[in-house]
This record gives sequence, structure tokens and C-alpha cells, in this order.
Amino acid sequence: AVRDLLLPLEPPDIAMLLEEAGEEFMPLLYRLLPKELAAEVFVELESDSQEMLINGFSNTELKEVLDELYLDDAVDIVEEMPASVVIRILDKATPEMRKSINEMLQYPEDSAGSIMNVEYLSLKKDMTVADAFKRIRRIGGELETINILYVTDPTRHLQGVLSVRDLLLADEDDRIEEIMDPNVVSVTTLDDKEDVAQAMSKYDYLAMPVVDQENRLIGIVTVDDAMDVMEEETTEDFEKMAAMLPSDKPYLKTSIYSTWKARIPWLMVLMLSATFTGLILNHYESKLAACLVLNAYIPMLSGTGGNSGTQASVAVIRALSLDEVDFSDLLQVLWKELRVSFLCGVCLASANFVKMLLVDRMLLGNDAVTITVCTVVCLTILFVVIFAKCVGCALPLLAEKVGLDPAVMASPFISTIVDATSLLIYFALASAFIPALHTM
Amino acid sequence: AVRDLLLPLEPPDIAMLLEEAGEEFMPLLYRLLPKELAAEVFVELESDSQEMLINGFSNTELKEVLDELYLDDAVDIVEEMPASVVIRILDKATPEMRKSINEMLQYPEDSAGSIMNVEYLSLKKDMTVADAFKRIRRIGGELETINILYVTDPTRHLQGVLSVRDLLLADEDDRIEEIMDPNVVSVTTLDDKEDVAQAMSKYDYLAMPVVDQENRLIGIVTVDDAMDVMEEETTEDFEKMAAMLPSDKPYLKTSIYSTWKARIPWLMVLMLSATFTGLILNHYESKLAACLVLNAYIPMLSGTGGNSGTQASVAVIRALSLDEVDFSDLLQVLWKELRVSFLCGVCLASANFVKMLLVDRMLLGNDAVTITVCTVVCLTILFVVIFAKCVGCALPLLAEKVGLDPAVMASPFISTIVDATSLLIYFALASAFIPALHTM
Ligand SMILES: [Mg+2]
Ligand SMILES: [Mg+2]
Ligand SMILES: [Mg+2]
Ligand SMILES: [Mg+2]
Ligand SMILES: [Mg+2]
Ligand SMILES: [Mg+2]
Ligand SMILES: [Mg+2]
Ligand SMILES: [Mg+2]
Ligand SMILES: [Mg+2]
Ligand SMILES: [Mg+2]
Ligand SMILES: [Mg+2]
Ligand SMILES: [Mg+2]
Ligand SMILES: [Mg+2]
Repeated sequence: AVRDLLLPLEPPDIAMLLEEAGEEFMPLLYRLLPKELAAEVFVELESDSQEMLINGFSNTELKEVLDELYLDDAVDIVEEMPASVVIRILDKATPEMRKSINEMLQYPEDSAGSIMNVEYLSLKKDMTVADAFKRIRRIGGELETINILYVTDPTRHLQGVLSVRDLLLADEDDRIEEIMDPNVVSVTTLDDKEDVAQAMSKYDYLAMPVVDQENRLIGIVTVDDAMDVMEEETTEDFEKMAAMLPSDKPYLKTSIYSTWKARIPWLMVLMLSATFTGLILNHYESKLAACLVLNAYIPMLSGTGGNSGTQASVAVIRALSLDEVDFSDLLQVLWKELRVSFLCGVCLASANFVKMLLVDRMLLGNDAVTITVCTVVCLTILFVVIFAKCVGCALPLLAEKVGLDPAVMASPFISTIVDATSLLIYFALASAFIPALHTM
Repeated sequence: AVRDLLLPLEPPDIAMLLEEAGEEFMPLLYRLLPKELAAEVFVELESDSQEMLINGFSNTELKEVLDELYLDDAVDIVEEMPASVVIRILDKATPEMRKSINEMLQYPEDSAGSIMNVEYLSLKKDMTVADAFKRIRRIGGELETINILYVTDPTRHLQGVLSVRDLLLADEDDRIEEIMDPNVVSVTTLDDKEDVAQAMSKYDYLAMPVVDQENRLIGIVTVDDAMDVMEEETTEDFEKMAAMLPSDKPYLKTSIYSTWKARIPWLMVLMLSATFTGLILNHYESKLAACLVLNAYIPMLSGTGGNSGTQASVAVIRALSLDEVDFSDLLQVLWKELRVSFLCGVCLASANFVKMLLVDRMLLGNDAVTITVCTVVCLTILFVVIFAKCVGCALPLLAEKVGLDPAVMASPFISTIVDATSLLIYFALASAFIPALHTM
């Protein structure tokens, strides 16, 4: 009866139910599943559940799961297991699978090679459409996809691509060469997986062929894995932009210790670099004491500067990930941000001028808020907004240029720089405009 | 010769070259392309280029492009055109296409209906595999995809799904009912397109069927469009998290005025709400004057608080988009953040204590930095970090609960709240610990 409830569900949903069933019932429920579905569910489980199940598997059971797995998924699983489990998996895998897993584990972590599947369907130029169908019927059942087919020569060089639809719409005796598209976009095993996903999205591909340095077809990346890459890379960008080190577990599954470890480094660095801001305030301590009203506007100035810079930096960080800009656009980007920031700065400064006079001076009756003070504060806003937006748009581009991740140049980092600078601008203007501060 | 250079390229790349060729040469180059490729390239152009080309098209040319377009793309184009162009398009479209476009324009902006394609391949339960192949050969050439096929009854109710691979691996005389999967996951026309993309990624689907309220099949969403949705929604999240209103044009294509319009509202709101922070500083002005050394640490406190809050809020915002948490997890999330923030707070406070004594007091010789001042600053850090992380994780969950976009609860918003609160905590602790401030 439980089995009848599970079977109609999709693998990720069954996996979720198994996770919720807990350690005790998971193996029982898992064993209710037919072989092929079981493997699909296994792939969707968290790696600690996978490890737990493997430890309970008999050798036959382990072999059964391995036989059903696609190689790319097998590699993903092996990567997360402790050494003892890995040894047992490799021991039970077929020699062929063991060899492929070993090869795929060699590819760098973020490379196309690390997410590709080495099992794909290839055809030869001089096959007929009927031959191709025969081949699909013979081996298509074991492959991840037959929607896209690649044509290779005897040394596995990529010669063309066609879809199963092309085959279906062709005549039985057409030769593959006549119906294939000889212009194949491919990536190499060492290309960044994020670029691969981006290219697949751009070209609307269901699969992307992966070739080695000699243009020999090695594997394919399927669109479902490309979507996973896009999600992971977005999460990574979010984390970096919020001053966290990237983690690869879901939020609630990450331990307190791991969360702490991902968050404390940048908090520490940014806290300690605020020392500069403190030094600036100390340096101008006597001027501040002489005109304490200035102090009340510091948080507003640093907030406005930080927000302005964040807007520019995030816009550029996103444009960089979408390949809309690169370093060569620096001047164009700066010129754009300069004009936008001037507009924003003028609006904010004017609004604040009115607000300071009407609210702070008249409504709240603070006589220290003179026209001069208003002028100093509002001019500072203008300069700070312009400075923040220019720094905000330039830093991600520079980071990309020197090979750093632009995502790090977001709010926390920009705010820290802008904080210190806005104080320097503020005190320079105050010293120039307020007579009492001239001689100090 | 130019034609030979263009033809081997993929449509998005040809579109890019056309854009770069400029208004003068674009129509010339465009007319070099064969009909089908021309339509594929047309879809990839910016909407101002599309408009320009349409204005130059003869009625026959316009009709040719329209005939080649998939309906979902036609709708996307129509949505961006000015009324005069829309009228001309609808006039030249077939009556059937006109009707479908009109229907699809009715769906709400972010709905599954707005991104679906109403042209798909459906089969009947009692067809044989051979019948299905006949149908694919007859109409498959005009459809966006034949990889996934849907089985419907005479009233278009969804009964099953199968892939073209299932067909290829079956016997010619098998009935569709025997090989289809009767458990079909579907979405309704009014579901949020972001949820649709998320579901397709989760289930690794190449197409998702879209049904109406009576479970009748209306259209399909293909995986390439789901990837576009994921990208757009990520961009939207980035923009909202950086206090910008979402825009739908690429960064460099957005005018100065539009960029300004997207950025100024939140800058203005956040600047004006910093008034509260100013009021708090005014209120404690005399205490500050009596112990001016406290002032130097305010930017550090507000920065650390803002960064801590941002980390928690961004982690939760991302977990919400990935469906890893929802409002019912509030207590679990709070308990996690409470422990993480305690750990972070203790580390930061200790590090800062040492730094204040060693650097500020001993190295820089600032005698005002007493043990008491250090204690006040470091205790404030601890409390502010805990407060910031709790607010940071709770606000996105609350926003989701009341139907607001959680992405708005990121850095700029959280920082503004934390700024004011950290000052209150700071002055409360200072008043309690520093004898000189007791009686003020
Ligand atoms: Mg199913
Ligand atoms: Mg994989
Ligand atoms: Mg990466
Ligand atoms: Mg696309
Ligand atoms: Mg597309
Ligand atoms: Mg895969
Ligand atoms: Mg990245
Ligand atoms: Mg569409
Ligand atoms: Mg949305
Ligand atoms: Mg997936
Ligand atoms: Mg998957
Ligand atoms: Mg489409
Ligand atoms: Mg969203």
C-alpha cells in the first residue's frame, strides 16, 4: 500500500518523503522501489542519506544501483563519500565504469568535464537514417538522452549534430551527412561550467558536446545539469555578495559550525578595516566637538553612500554574469554611472536640504542646523553619491580583469570603502564652509 | 560571401552581428538570411531593432516572419511593440494566430500562461506507436518540440506523458496507453512562472504541460524558456536586494533616465528614514560630548551590524527562492541564527577587545580607550550581531508570509533598521557602564 503511494510520484518527491521518514524507515521504504526508480531516487537524496543507505546495502544491492546510475551522477555521489565508501563503490562498479569515474574525477571542480556525461549517442556520417534508428533502439535505452545526436569520425572528432526530430522527419534511406548540421558549437573539458550553462541558455540547447584539446568528443552536458549549475552559481553569487564564503549545502542542513565558519572571516576583515573610519573620526574629533550637529548626519551619509554604491556594483556584477559587459566597457560604464549618480545626487541633496530646514530646523527647533550646515551636508551627499557609484561600478570590472570574483565587490566591501571616504569629504567640506572650523 | 559567413552561426550570434552592423546595414544583412533562420534571428534581436525591421518590411515579408515564429515568441514580440506596429502584426497574422496571440496576451505578466506555447504535440490513448510516428512526421516539423508528447482525451484533459524515446523503444503496434506515464505533473495557466521554472529544474523536465482550471491541456512551457525565466528572476532578485526597482533591459541598453528612475525611490526612502538615526544621535548629544571616544566606534558598529544582518537575510532570501524554507520554519531559522550569531558575536567582540587595547590604546596612545570603553563597545558588538542576524533572518520570512517580495529585505533595508537599533543598544550600555554618563 505504501508502495502504491510512492510509485506515482516523481523521484525528487519520493526522495523528500524518504528523507522525512528518517534513518530508521528510509532503507525499508527504499527497498520498496523498483530498480530503475530506486536509482533515480538515490541520486536525489542528500549525501548523508546516500552514505547511510550504501552502508546498509549488500554487495548485490550496491551493484544494482551502480548499474542503473548515469555516470555523471555516479561521479557526483562518489565525490561526496568518505574514502571507505568510495573504495567499496569502485570495487563493485564494472571495470569500465571504474575507469570512467576515475577519469572524470580528474577534471577541475568547476570545469565542464566535472559535470559532463561520457555516455552519449554518436552516429557516423555515412549511416542511413534507418541505421541510426537501429542504433537508437539498440543502445538508446541506457543513455541519458537521445534527443540530440552527435556525428563523429573514427577518431571521435566532432563532425555534426542532429536532433531525433531531424531523423524522424527524414527518409529512411537519407544519409546522416545530408541531414546533420555541420556547424557544431562545443565546449572543452576545461571550460568553466558556468560559461557552459550560459551558452546552453543562450543557444537554447538541450545538450552541449564537450571535446578535448584535440576536438575529440568526450562527453555531453545535459540541460537539466546546466540548470543546476545556474542555480548553484546564483547561490554562490548571493553568498559572496553578502560577505559569506560559499557553502554547498541547503540552508537548514548546514551545521551551526559550518555557517559560522562561512560567515566569520569577512565579518572580521570588515570590522577590523572599519578602524580607518575610526581613525578619521578621531582625527577630526576637535572639529566635531566644536560643531556636534554634524555628527547626527554621519549615519545618513554613510548609509546613502553605501546604498548608492551597492546599486551600481550589483548592476555591474549582474551584467558581468550575463556577459552584457566586460572590462573593455569600463569607460562607457563609468560615464553612465557618472551621469546617473549626478542625477541621483542632485535629487537626494535637494530633498535633504528641504528636509533639514523644514524638519530638523523648523519642526524640531534645532538652531544648530544652519543654512551653512545644510549646505555642507547636502554637498557631501552629492559628492558621496557620485564617488560611491563610480567606485561601485568600477571595482567589479577591475576584479574581473585581475581574475577575482566580481561578486565580492558588493555591498559590504563597497560600504566599507565609502564609509571612510564619505567622512573625508564631509570634514573637508565642513572645514571649508563653517568659519568656526577654519582655524582648528 | 557575407552570407556564407553568417549562415554557419547560431541565431543569437547572428543577431549580435546584426545589432553591431547598425540601423543602416541591419535590414540588408537580415534579407540575406533564409526564411526559417531569419525568423530565429528575428526573435533574438532587441525590441527596438525588431520594430525598425518591421517598419521596413513589406506586407509579404512581415507575413513570412510571422508564419515562421513560434507563438510564445510572437507574443513576446507583440508585447514590446507600440500600438501601430501591433495592429499591423495582428492584421498580417493568420486568423488562428491572431486569436491565440490575443488569448495569450490576457494572461497575467508573471504567469505560466504568459510564457507557454500553445502549439504542442498531443496523442490519444488508443493510438498505436505507428500512428504516433505518422502524426509526428505530419505535424512535427512545425512544432517547437517533439521530445515530450502529451496524451489527452477528446475534451483535452491530460491523461499521460511520454518521450519520443519511449516511442522509439516500443513496438510499432504497442498502444500509447501501454507505454505512457499516467502520472503527469502539470501547472496551471495562472501559476507563477518562477515556480514553473523551479519545478522543471527539480524534476529535470524538458517541457511542462500547462492546464486550465478544469485540467484541460492549454500549452507547454519549454526548458529554454524556463532557463530564461530563471535568469530574469535572478536579475530581479539582485536588483531588489540592492534597493533598485527591477528593469527589463540589459545594463548598457538602459537609458540614464530609466536607470535613475529605478534607483532614486529607495535611495530617497532610505535616506529619509535615516532621520531616526539622526534623532537618536541628537538625543544623546550631551553624553557623546562627554565621552567623545565612543563616537569613533559608531561606523564600525553599524557596519558590523549591517553585514551580520545582510548575511542572515541573504541566506534566507536564497533559501526561500529555492523552496528550502518557508514561514513555518521561522522558529527553526531563528534558533539557528541565534546560535550562529552568538558564536560570531563572541568572536568579533573578543577580537575587537584585543584590537582596541593593543592598537587604539597602546599603539596609538589614545588614553580615552579605557577597559570600560572597550567593554561597552564589545558588548554592543555582541548584542548588535545577535539582533541583526535575528532581524535579518526573520524579515524575509515575514515578507513572504504577507505576500511581499522577500528580496527587498536585504542589505539596504536591514542596515537602516540595524543602524538605529545599534545606537540605542550602544548608548544604553554606555550609560550603564560609564560612571560619567550615569547622571546625564
Ligand atoms: Mg512519473
Ligand atoms: Mg552531473
Ligand atoms: Mg564559478
Ligand atoms: Mg535561451
Ligand atoms: Mg529562446
Ligand atoms: Mg545528468
Ligand atoms: Mg560566479
Ligand atoms: Mg516565451
Ligand atoms: Mg516573480
Ligand atoms: Mg534538476
Ligand atoms: Mg538531476
Ligand atoms: Mg519558446
Ligand atoms: Mg522573485
